[in-house]
Amino acid sequence: MEKPRAVLFDAYGTLFDVYSVALTAEQLFPGQGSALSVLWRDKQIEYTRLVTGSGDGEHYRPFWELTRAGLRYACKRLGLELSPTAQERLMNEYRHLSAFPEDREVLQALKAAGVTTGILSNGDPDMLGVAVRSAGLDGLLDHVLSVDAVRKYKTHPAAYGLGPAATGLAAKQIVFVSSNSWDALAATWYGYRTLWVNRAGLPFEELGTQPTRSGSSLRDVLAFFD
Amino acid sequence: MEKPRAVLFDAYGTLFDVYSVALTAEQLFPGQGSALSVLWRDKQIEYTRLVTGSGDGEHYRPFWELTRAGLRYACKRLGLELSPTAQERLMNEYRHLSAFPEDREVLQALKAAGVTTGILSNGDPDMLGVAVRSAGLDGLLDHVLSVDAVRKYKTHPAAYGLGPAATGLAAKQIVFVSSNSWDALAATWYGYRTLWVNRAGLPFEELGTQPTRSGSSLRDVLAFFD
Repeated sequence: MEKPRAVLFDAYGTLFDVYSVALTAEQLFPGQGSALSVLWRDKQIEYTRLVTGSGDGEHYRPFWELTRAGLRYACKRLGLELSPTAQERLMNEYRHLSAFPEDREVLQALKAAGVTTGILSNGDPDMLGVAVRSAGLDGLLDHVLSVDAVRKYKTHPAAYGLGPAATGLAAKQIVFVSSNSWDALAATWYGYRTLWVNRAGLPFEELGTQPTRSGSSLRDVLAFFD
Repeated sequence: MEKPRAVLFDAYGTLFDVYSVALTAEQLFPGQGSALSVLWRDKQIEYTRLVTGSGDGEHYRPFWELTRAGLRYACKRLGLELSPTAQERLMNEYRHLSAFPEDREVLQALKAAGVTTGILSNGDPDMLGVAVRSAGLDGLLDHVLSVDAVRKYKTHPAAYGLGPAATGLAAKQIVFVSSNSWDALAATWYGYRTLWVNRAGLPFEELGTQPTRSGSSLRDVLAFFD
């Protein structure tokens, strides 16, 4: 099989650690930091599905707004009083998530091999710009693609279609990398070659389709080029 | 405002208690029954969204299959060995969920008032048929509508569109009742009058739209006809 020509990475959870907010959450709400960060993340993803799945884009709102809505819901659900100060502090953390330690070296290795690199993310362009610069990844990414351009969140085919459109390649010539199993699944359905980065040792989705490869860090993407 | 002419009920969680499987789950997996029933339900719903949200119906599978897939995932995630016998026992429980105690009296009151009644559910026709008969609700429902007819799960507009199509009424002449906040939200977006039956005292979704009414049991639907 022809080697892939490009690698597109999911951002949140894949290049950036969405649970790095748990530390600040724990300071603000002792004993609840972990529960809050998990529920916040789950609700944020649920909201992307609700706004995209309930119409033809008319309920779309940028990821930043859905992230804030998810935080508000999660605090109410856990019975936590979210002051405006705490809200801004947590949202600011979300803007500056930690990068995973291997991000740079993997992107550098791909660039050295002449592979096109990029992000294909639910995040809106502002969020992605800040995250990429904070993590020092600018210069290592040929494309930073936001679903905001089509106002449909993953797993909508229009969102995954941004990759072939931007690179001029067929989906099967591109590896899509995600640590989110639902994202790796739907990207496989779309036609990408896929790597599921299973950092937490979770089971894959039980819907009868497997990602092309699974691994435990971004480094495993390099096996596509051996 | 004109009084509504029909009431459509969500089935799972609204007329039937999806957590009634927790007892059997607890017998099979002591200490994990509650966790399993919650994770099973969450995954089942997530799978409806993934198969509907990732294309134009080509990934659709009946609710029964997604329910089984959700059970398998939930057991793997919790590290529980699911024997074929245990799987069939739990699936069988799901086929015969408990009805909520007020189901019959509320449906009878609506029928007595000349209101058209029905179910509009993600469940496939077989599942719904068994559930309705088990609960003794047949004869009290004018319509039992399954999204299987359009191969799109709620919250897709084609799923909600089954209500107006079957009743010949406009969505605004129909009350849609759900205990699932996401379902009440999306039905409101679609144009139904809505009742969110908030049995568990949860916060509503934080997406800027409220259901027409909220209540704590199905009885609250009768307030639309005062």
